[in-house]
Amino acid sequence: MQIVLLSGGSGKRLWPLSNDVRSKQFLKIVRDERGGVESMVQRVYRQIMAAKLGAEITIATSITQVESIRNQLGDSVSIIVEPARRNTFPAIALASAYLFYEKKCSPDETVLVLPVDPYVDDGYFQTLRTLDEAVQADRADIILMGVQPTYPSEKYGYIIPEERGRLSRVLSFKEKPDTRTAQEFIARGGLWNCGVFAFRLSYLLEMIHTTTACSGYADVARQYTAFERTSFDYAVVEKARSVAVVPYRGEWKDLGTWNTLTEVMDAAPIGDVKLSEDCENTHVINELEIPVVVMGARNMVIAASPDGLLVADKVQSSYIKQYVENRDMRPMYEERAWGEYKVLDFAMSADGMKSLTKRKKIQRGKKIEYQSHKNRAEVITVISGKCIITINDRAHEAYAGDTYAIAEGIRHGLEAVTDTEVIEIQVGKELISDGTEPCEKGREIDI
Amino acid sequence: MQIVLLSGGSGKRLWPLSNDVRSKQFLKIVRDERGGVESMVQRVYRQIMAAKLGAEITIATSITQVESIRNQLGDSVSIIVEPARRNTFPAIALASAYLFYEKKCSPDETVLVLPVDPYVDDGYFQTLRTLDEAVQADRADIILMGVQPTYPSEKYGYIIPEERGRLSRVLSFKEKPDTRTAQEFIARGGLWNCGVFAFRLSYLLEMIHTTTACSGYADVARQYTAFERTSFDYAVVEKARSVAVVPYRGEWKDLGTWNTLTEVMDAAPIGDVKLSEDCENTHVINELEIPVVVMGARNMVIAASPDGLLVADKVQSSYIKQYVENRDMRPMYEERAWGEYKVLDFAMSADGMKSLTKRKKIQRGKKIEYQSHKNRAEVITVISGKCIITINDRAHEAYAGDTYAIAEGIRHGLEAVTDTEVIEIQVGKELISDGTEPCEKGREIDI
Repeated sequence: MQIVLLSGGSGKRLWPLSNDVRSKQFLKIVRDERGGVESMVQRVYRQIMAAKLGAEITIATSITQVESIRNQLGDSVSIIVEPARRNTFPAIALASAYLFYEKKCSPDETVLVLPVDPYVDDGYFQTLRTLDEAVQADRADIILMGVQPTYPSEKYGYIIPEERGRLSRVLSFKEKPDTRTAQEFIARGGLWNCGVFAFRLSYLLEMIHTTTACSGYADVARQYTAFERTSFDYAVVEKARSVAVVPYRGEWKDLGTWNTLTEVMDAAPIGDVKLSEDCENTHVINELEIPVVVMGARNMVIAASPDGLLVADKVQSSYIKQYVENRDMRPMYEERAWGEYKVLDFAMSADGMKSLTKRKKIQRGKKIEYQSHKNRAEVITVISGKCIITINDRAHEAYAGDTYAIAEGIRHGLEAVTDTEVIEIQVGKELISDGTEPCEKGREIDI
Repeated sequence: MQIVLLSGGSGKRLWPLSNDVRSKQFLKIVRDERGGVESMVQRVYRQIMAAKLGAEITIATSITQVESIRNQLGDSVSIIVEPARRNTFPAIALASAYLFYEKKCSPDETVLVLPVDPYVDDGYFQTLRTLDEAVQADRADIILMGVQPTYPSEKYGYIIPEERGRLSRVLSFKEKPDTRTAQEFIARGGLWNCGVFAFRLSYLLEMIHTTTACSGYADVARQYTAFERTSFDYAVVEKARSVAVVPYRGEWKDLGTWNTLTEVMDAAPIGDVKLSEDCENTHVINELEIPVVVMGARNMVIAASPDGLLVADKVQSSYIKQYVENRDMRPMYEERAWGEYKVLDFAMSADGMKSLTKRKKIQRGKKIEYQSHKNRAEVITVISGKCIITINDRAHEAYAGDTYAIAEGIRHGLEAVTDTEVIEIQVGKELISDGTEPCEKGREIDI
């Protein structure tokens, strides 16, 4: 069984915690089993492991999320990088090509495609077994999971089954209905379409071969932008000869807004927060290193990150998009494969010189790749730990208090011997499109 | 006429904007005449100047406020530094000794003592003329200003006059009463004691000479800590042979809490703030460089500074003290005579090494004094402007991108040729009691 997790786009509906590189699935705000916090990606991954499905996991995502995934899940998952942001059909086609041509999976294997961020109970993952069995028993070309609706929602598509039960042929699909129609669908046993698909790998390979001229993973990747920007539902499910659905009757939540997210958060605030006793139904997340004091707040969500501060009535928070949409801020915090960084300061002088000051935490044993920058100088000051700083091929042991000023064009890299923190100051006319060049071919670079 | 402004203690009731070095009177949050914002110190100073009283101004304060006063008012006011924090009697005695022995004022001159932070209209300063005239006409030893009460407050002391009118003998003083008693006082013409005193300089000099063995400014300063910790009201006013009061019937506000402060603030938010249209009676002050978005807030005050974030119901905000009292944070922002700095980052490593990263803005023509530090190294990186950095007596012209690593014990100073910004990283075992030594005697030092 091959599980493909679709790790979708960034969004600003959970601003200031989510940003262009930090999608909501990476926010560590869901209470984990040991009283700590974890992200949705970590939760789903942990639940899949706990379900003991014997499945292998591949995550399909964009380049901007690779470092976050590596940071949160380590090296044990396969990642395929979508060459561009397209819809779910191209993403699943690419993943299928990867599984067959690169991972050499059998065409008979079941592929289970899931979104990476549903908030569900463990029964959801046990239900995947039923989908796998149905695929292997050839009950239909495509097997879907349908979520038992809890109210007549207008936000979701509905799957109408022929009969109620553990597995049923699908009679029809219905787009987002109005409330009255939704009530009818539910009366007929309708289920929410939650984006879970199962099929034999061979089914999708045939589809690729008949609809495109691709015949290999590299081929699909190269022609990726030519793929139709269409959903898997539209391109595959609605055109399949036979589709069946397996109902899931447990908890299922789409944590797309602050309002829904706070429903699954622990009442206890996260971070350095003091709440007065008269606060009611108020969730506070503080990712900054300065304290947040909240007094007399009711039904609010308060979130502080290096990107900004949100203070919102929970219901109003659904309309956040318009307030943050046109802000063109660079991300102030990012996870990287080597650790994480936070922007401490950004400044521009009257004569056009820009500066960016970051604190970087590099995990023990990890490296910031050897690189050089055409358009900016850097000053690196170690503030804790021990590391090796290599400059123009010469390695220097560095400790707290040591500083290296690196002029434009000079090759440099850093390897953390123990957990290391540095303050890095970039100064130059142009910091973003900065002429950074990796000094060894094919390595990722740090901008 | 000599005006002595008492610039009192720090407080945390306006946290996070006020802190141990930044008292509420220095917060730039009161709308000024040109649509900008100014601090209470700046407002009172501007109002005194506009009143054309022909008065000279001396500010009595503690060492921690000197740099803020210089930064906000420039060099035109005299500052006397209280050797320790005492009550108003020692502070006024020291100021009087300064005026006579150092400033060589005539003992016949009127001294007017005012708090530095009342929010009043211009009539208040015109009323000072009446106090001066009464002193010069020997109407009483001490002339007070009494504020016409607007409600039967339990927070203020009351002055009961013999008769209603422009100037009256004082019949009695009453401590903070309950509401019913306050109503009686008001019915009898009672006025609030607002801490404004006027007297002939000679009156206080005699008092100093009869109650202490001091005979000079240095003497008073040296014996300052031996002075009784008592208020001017108790030590002088209540014991005087004759006391009179001049009523002031204009606006008078004690901006001690967020709730009262927001009453005089413009509705428009300060800083990078977006308020949704459904916010009501909500004031937002953002001193950070990241955006604040507020949605659906009612009757709230939201304040963000490098010290922390407050989100509070306005009425509840009066109880803030308990939430911030035991926090022993270093100030994250300070004004200095040469400009200002902001702490960007503070970190401590496992082996006890500490680091502190600051962004400093040094005003054109200003200097950070020549100094050395026994216990810490510093790395200074210029990010904008042009300055002269002197290291071990050698001067270097420095521009954006230039870095100087300054080891422990090395003498260094900086002079801004144009407005200059630097990132300074301090690294060492001990940063606060850091063995900083000025390299020229008697100069202030920068820690």
